[in-house]
Order: sequence, then C-alpha cells, then structure tokens
Amino acid sequence: MGETHLARRRRLAALAAGQGAGALLVTRLVNVRYLTGLASSRAALLVGADGEAVLATDARYAGTAERVCPDVPLVVDRHVAEVLTARAAERGLGPLGFEAHDLTVERHTALTGHADVPLVPLGHLVEELRRVKDEEEIGLLREACAVTDRAFDAVLPEIRAGVTERAVAIALERAMVDFGAEGPAFESIVASGPNGAVPHHRPGGRELETGDLVTMDFGARYGGYHADMTRTVAIGEPAEWQREVYDLVLRAQLAGIAAAVPGAETKAVDAAARDVVADAGRGEEFTHGLGHGVGLEIHEAPLLGYDGTGKLMDRVPITAEPGVYLPGRGGVRIEDTIVVRADGPELLTTTTKDLLVL
Amino acid sequence: MGETHLARRRRLAALAAGQGAGALLVTRLVNVRYLTGLASSRAALLVGADGEAVLATDARYAGTAERVCPDVPLVVDRHVAEVLTARAAERGLGPLGFEAHDLTVERHTALTGHADVPLVPLGHLVEELRRVKDEEEIGLLREACAVTDRAFDAVLPEIRAGVTERAVAIALERAMVDFGAEGPAFESIVASGPNGAVPHHRPGGRELETGDLVTMDFGARYGGYHADMTRTVAIGEPAEWQREVYDLVLRAQLAGIAAAVPGAETKAVDAAARDVVADAGRGEEFTHGLGHGVGLEIHEAPLLGYDGTGKLMDRVPITAEPGVYLPGRGGVRIEDTIVVRADGPELLTTTTKDLLVL
Repeated sequence: MGETHLARRRRLAALAAGQGAGALLVTRLVNVRYLTGLASSRAALLVGADGEAVLATDARYAGTAERVCPDVPLVVDRHVAEVLTARAAERGLGPLGFEAHDLTVERHTALTGHADVPLVPLGHLVEELRRVKDEEEIGLLREACAVTDRAFDAVLPEIRAGVTERAVAIALERAMVDFGAEGPAFESIVASGPNGAVPHHRPGGRELETGDLVTMDFGARYGGYHADMTRTVAIGEPAEWQREVYDLVLRAQLAGIAAAVPGAETKAVDAAARDVVADAGRGEEFTHGLGHGVGLEIHEAPLLGYDGTGKLMDRVPITAEPGVYLPGRGGVRIEDTIVVRADGPELLTTTTKDLLVL
Repeated sequence: MGETHLARRRRLAALAAGQGAGALLVTRLVNVRYLTGLASSRAALLVGADGEAVLATDARYAGTAERVCPDVPLVVDRHVAEVLTARAAERGLGPLGFEAHDLTVERHTALTGHADVPLVPLGHLVEELRRVKDEEEIGLLREACAVTDRAFDAVLPEIRAGVTERAVAIALERAMVDFGAEGPAFESIVASGPNGAVPHHRPGGRELETGDLVTMDFGARYGGYHADMTRTVAIGEPAEWQREVYDLVLRAQLAGIAAAVPGAETKAVDAAARDVVADAGRGEEFTHGLGHGVGLEIHEAPLLGYDGTGKLMDRVPITAEPGVYLPGRGGVRIEDTIVVRADGPELLTTTTKDLLVL
C-alpha cells in the first residue's frame, strides 16, 4: 500500500508544480485518505511540488497514522491545516495551493491570518486523479460489489407481499454486514408500488403488495470503496405495462453500458441510454442522469448526464442506472457498477437482470 | 411542528437584526432542518430580519418540503444558495449574513459573483440558538436514549468471552434499529482488553477474553436526535486495579453530573470530574474533555473541556463521559446523556452504572 500512495502523491505533486504552486495543502479527508491510506476525521496533508509530504492528525489517530503510512513524516496537532501551513512557510514553499471546495470561509480566514505564504485555490486536483482507479482500488470495489450481490441473493426469499419497505432495507443492510461490508455505502432505497415513482424514496412502513414493482437501490462499503446497485422486482405476475417498462429500462441500460468505452463523451454515454427511452416516447419519465463515478465516495467524478462535458477513460468505475417513473403508478430502475475498460466494460455487480417475479 | 419552527425562525431573525443584517442565508443543512423541519441533502433558507422566510431545495425534496413546512414559501431550484441570494437582492434585503463555517471558499466565490447584496459572515447564530432545546426536542432525545438503554439491555446476554468486538457492535446497532432507531447516532465503539486504552477504538476482530474490561460507546438516532451512552463491563471477576479504576471513573462522572447546573461554567463542570481523577493521581490518564452538547448533531455546543468558556443553561442536553486509559492494559469510560435543569440534572440514559460482571 505504501508504494501505491507514494505514486499517487507523486502524480499530484507533478500536477501542482505544473500550476506553479510550491506545495498543496490537502484538507478534504477523503483526499487525505486517498493519498496516505489514513481514514481520520481530523487530518491534512502537505504535498510539496517536489513530492515530499507531511501528514498532520490529532492524538486519537497518531497510532493509526504511524501504522498505515510509516513513510510519511507525521505532525500530531489538532490544528492540522494551521500547522502544515506554518510548515510550508518554514520550508519556503509558496504559493500554497488549497482545496477551495473543502475549506470553509471561516477556516480560510483563520488560515490566512496564520499564513506567511500566499494561498491560492488549486481546483479539484485530487478528485481528478481519483477519477481513474488503479487495480488495487478496482479490487476493493469488486469485493464491495460481490458483497452487494450476495446480500441481494440472501434477502430475495424475504421479499414478498406483507413485508414493509423498511424491513427489506434493514435485511439488505444486515446481510451486507454479515458478508463483510463495513456498512451500507449509502442509505438504502426500497420503493414499492406507487413509491417506485420517487427516485430517492426513503423506505417506510408501506407493505409490499401483490401487483407491485419494488425498486431496491443499495450497496456495500468495503475497504472504503462504495458499491451501487439497483434491481426492480415484481410481486406476483406483472401487468403488461410493468413488463413493457421493465424491458425498456433494461434495453436502455444495456445500451448505456455498451457505449461506456474509453474516449466516449460522458453525455454520449448518457444519450445512448436516454435515446432508447425517448424513442419509446418515455423520455420525460427518465428524470435523472445515467450515472456517476464511484470509489472512495458514492458520488464522484465523472457525472454522466445529458449536459456534462468530459470523456471516459480506461479504469474509470461508473454506475449505469436509467429509470422510468410513472407518478402514482410506480417505476423501474436498473443499475450496475461497471468499470470502463479498453476491452469492453467490466460488470462488477453481476446479479441477474431478468425480471424476477416473487 | 410548524409553530415550533416558526418560533425558531423568529428568534433567529431577531438575532440577525441585532447584528445589522437585512437577512440571513442559512446553508448548513442541519440548521435548515432545525428551522424548517426539512431534512434534505440540498437546501438553503433565507430568513429576513422581519422574520419572513423562503426555502429552496431541489426537485427530489419538493414534495417533502411542501408536506413538512407548508407555511414557508418554496423555491424549487438546485442552485439553492444562488436563488435565495438573488431573492434577497430583489427584496432589497442587505447586507446578507452567511454561514462562514459552512460555505466553502469555492461556493462563496461563486455566490459573490451572483450577489447584488453585500455578503457578511454572521457567526454561528443558529448553533447558538440550538444550544438550548425546547421540550419537543428533549422528548425526541429522551426517546433516542430510551432506545439506547433498551438495546444495551437486549444485547447484554451476548457479551461474553469468545465474541468479537465487531459482533457486539453490530448486535447493538441492530437492536437499536429493532427498537425504533433510524440508525446508530455514530460509529459504535467496542473496545476490549488493551484496546480499551484507545478512547476512539474501532471495533475489530479481537475476541473478548475473561479478564477484560469492555467499553461500549454507542447511541441511537431518533427523529434526527442523537443519544450517546458508554458503559464498561467486566468479563469474569475483575482484578483489583479494574475495580479501582471503575469506581474512580464512576465517582468522577457523578461529580461532573452534580456540577452540571444552570449558570455553571463549562470548565468548572469539567473540573468537578477531572479533580476526582487527578486527586487519585490519575489526571494524566483522563485524556479528553468531560463531554459535549448533543441534539441534531452528535457533537454540538457546548463543549465541556478544561479550557472552554461559557456557561450551562436550563434545557441544555450534554454528555458526561470521563475516562481513564492505561496504555497496554485497558480503560474505563462511563457516559450518560443528561439535560441540565433548574431543579437538577435529568438523566436521559438510565442503564445501571454498577459494574456488570458478565
């Protein structure tokens, strides 16, 4: 792991130097974790343009930091940003790039008072690095997805008329932990019958009924990495409109996945799926983007929407999750976590996409 | 509920007016929830010095917003801060106070580009209001604590030699959900044997052993409110040093609770507990503050430490959680959630503090 993190810091240092910064102050905790392996609720990392790094965290995490990243000099101080800014000034490293999307105005004002170096916003450099995953990261994501698949399989016998949405959500989350997840990757969605028309429905006390479609959107967190999968099942023999919408969403999803190749414009990938839905006259009922990057966060770059810019690259994990929502009646969404690969997309979630009739 | 939230907004408006602001832009989501009842992952609230409010959230939360706070005009727009800043400008409400501890430099820069009103940082006004709870909030906190008590009671028979820390943590979290929690209030701590010397130990694969002290720090979230309780138990008959440390920590905790009266300086309350530990020659081994406020967040104002300023007031819920940590050997922490009351502290967590021998 030490090697991997060192390589990441070197890539970052090269980017920072290219922008004329003497050093970069990383304060976003997930970015500190990416660059050091340390998961802490109070930490910051100084990365010089020469690649030399210094980590700061408070006493609670000092032991963990020494174990996880013994190759990075550690400062134990609760004022993590201040102490590293002072260190940058001592070493004559300026200007000091900071993460303007993370530092609050309050923290920035306090830091400016402390700093003997000019502070300059440096954009989302670490997030840009994080977009393309190394195989170690993809391995963790693969395991997170495998746990998700296993949990779905284990809970399937419990999904039937009379059970509440909330009970299904809890069963899925428990099963994921039983199979080795650190926890759910996000708050699980279980949306039954008419609730299925609400993309972000929170599971409640409604009992599943014969004739419902039930959409379950959930995933496991493993080694810090987030799986994301959605399946829609039918309780009892589905009506014709239910089958029709299901087949449409599935065709859209497969078209989206097929378009997810290195070099593809993100909006073209979205369009590949969206056009299938629009051609069936249901374009208005697909109310969100096709997907998003996943990794150390459940939502990260790239965003796959109808108006985004940017291209996919080899080793970028994304979700493909088209949906069709019919207010008052229900909805269908089908989602996998996949990895964009030169030789074609790799599906990390592998649960069947045949319409399950329970 | 509508009445309660209206009263909160009026108190805030009065504070904002007192500082010369024409309106306040609330962007911290937990503060938006406090002032409207809406729990959303994208929302902001404009509160004029006249008490008039406008809420903004995106389409996903529009229905919920209309249901939860029908008395507040709603703007559905994903650029929640921008749209409300424009609204303030239209209504000639300036200067516009903003939450400098929430807005990032990046969002603030973008907003400044949009704004036709001067933006001024307004401090932690809403957090200050939130410090003293109304009885409705205390009721939710009481229920969160009752669920926590019940979960501990239910899991007690499973805490024995051979069980892993992780299994105990999961059992506690499951029991809380079974008893009605929305989820755990924070990541549960289960620290056994030598791990007990690490205040924030994350539960792992270590199996409990006869001769261990086991510290469990956990709590339920209910109606958005956070319970926080710690109990330390013994696996098998405790050694003399274990009993001695346990009794010491318990005496310190009771002294801290007794000192938590309206008007008491927070550092005096901390000192009441700390002096007991120090008098026994173990002051160095009590390595953190006595406690903190709880409510819509697990950690909120006031902080009870040896160097804080400020006084307790009637209806301020806090934790009292002294600990003694012996590196390599183990530790003891005992914690309750209590409410400061004019007629003496109200204990919300009521699990026994006799040393349980399991």
